Amino acid sequence: MNNLQQTDQIIRGWLEELRMDVLREMRDPLAVSEKTSRKDLVTNIDKSNEKKIVSFIRKFDPQAQILGEEGSGDDVKDMHGHVWIIDPLDGTLNFVKQRDNFAIMIALYIDGKGVLGYIMDVTSDIIYGGGPEIGVFTQSHELKAPANLTLREGLLGVSGPMLVHDCYNLQAIDEASSGVRILGSAGMEFIQVLTGKQNGYISHLMPWDFAAGKILSETLELLVTKVDGTPVDMLSSNDVLVSTRNTQKDILNMIR
Amino acid sequence: MNNLQQTDQIIRGWLEELRMDVLREMRDPLAVSEKTSRKDLVTNIDKSNEKKIVSFIRKFDPQAQILGEEGSGDDVKDMHGHVWIIDPLDGTLNFVKQRDNFAIMIALYIDGKGVLGYIMDVTSDIIYGGGPEIGVFTQSHELKAPANLTLREGLLGVSGPMLVHDCYNLQAIDEASSGVRILGSAGMEFIQVLTGKQNGYISHLMPWDFAAGKILSETLELLVTKVDGTPVDMLSSNDVLVSTRNTQKDILNMIR
Repeated sequence: MNNLQQTDQIIRGWLEELRMDVLREMRDPLAVSEKTSRKDLVTNIDKSNEKKIVSFIRKFDPQAQILGEEGSGDDVKDMHGHVWIIDPLDGTLNFVKQRDNFAIMIALYIDGKGVLGYIMDVTSDIIYGGGPEIGVFTQSHELKAPANLTLREGLLGVSGPMLVHDCYNLQAIDEASSGVRILGSAGMEFIQVLTGKQNGYISHLMPWDFAAGKILSETLELLVTKVDGTPVDMLSSNDVLVSTRNTQKDILNMIR
Repeated sequence: MNNLQQTDQIIRGWLEELRMDVLREMRDPLAVSEKTSRKDLVTNIDKSNEKKIVSFIRKFDPQAQILGEEGSGDDVKDMHGHVWIIDPLDGTLNFVKQRDNFAIMIALYIDGKGVLGYIMDVTSDIIYGGGPEIGVFTQSHELKAPANLTLREGLLGVSGPMLVHDCYNLQAIDEASSGVRILGSAGMEFIQVLTGKQNGYISHLMPWDFAAGKILSETLELLVTKVDGTPVDMLSSNDVLVSTRNTQKDILNMIR
């Protein structure tokens, strides 16, 4: 592996190449199939994107383990050494129904520590990427830590099912916030929090849904934990809370 | 008044001018005040925008009545003659918290009939505008009627409070859809339905929230009614359902 700045440039190059492929391929009819339910979809593009990312990583970092949503990677059992966690197409339901509001996400952990994370908003062509050593940048500017807003002061992104079922007292938490938003893509929700447009996001997420966002969020002084404030498990699903410090404090006081 | 094509061009000119003003003014601190609650805000820019739109209309169509959110217009009692219905800044909470995801909306009704409607997505600089006589256009292309999807086949925009309180059996309706989205701006939600990215939207709306969207939607073979399928009242608040024909049928079968 090269140094971090070079690696950053290489990953951004992969993302731009993947984006061009997606934009071209999504003009053709998609091959869509259901995974666990009719709301949990996978397309030919999720799969082909993952194969491309795995092949980029294998060439660049041959000893690494790769954890990917669609199974082209490895059966990762621990976070030792280099572990890449990738979501080739996050927000697949949006992608299928809207051809918009979806993301590509790539994260690199070394010995369990988040080193580089990338979320690409594909239709807007904006990459939010970097990590604790180099900061977080789009193509045009560096992101600063968002204001440390309280729950009451900002908008909260949530999972629709968790809101409807009032998990963790979420309906009261939403009522205490300035308002609730539902975007249908973890990547797009992380972007809202990273840019200070929402002060939090709560959802049930798999590792590839939060691996990149966690690195970027923590670099910007945001917190990424389980909803009860305990550390997330990088290798299993978690009910995740992404938030400013003050919003986390407010939510921890209200969860049931 | 000139003919419709000319009027269309004139209104688009107003919107571009308003947009430049908003983008410039929103760099300065906003003067924000609460209307009915801390979630119902108004800013100096809502008010100055409305005054500008009213002044554009007074010069262009001096005999017309104007119904505006912030009260710079007239006390409109009926829909006879020319009635302009305007929302100088829709999605004010998004505007205040995000400086993004808000709209400017302008509609012209003549003797109760929708003639021209405009929704401008300000940050994206896209105008969705036109009406039954001239069609619906952005700056770059004409919009075609979206596919007549069933409830199950698409995504449904909803009001957060109506979802949480399960108004009209909305939680079951959402469960029957492909998924629920909450964007926090009626204008942005109408855009999603007009472009086929959502097959419906349900919310409690004031006339300025739906006046322009109704004209555009109906031009594109979408339906805009109360949630029970009856006609909306153009001069009062309504629980509004915007949807494809098939989605309306499915929802009417489920509402309670």
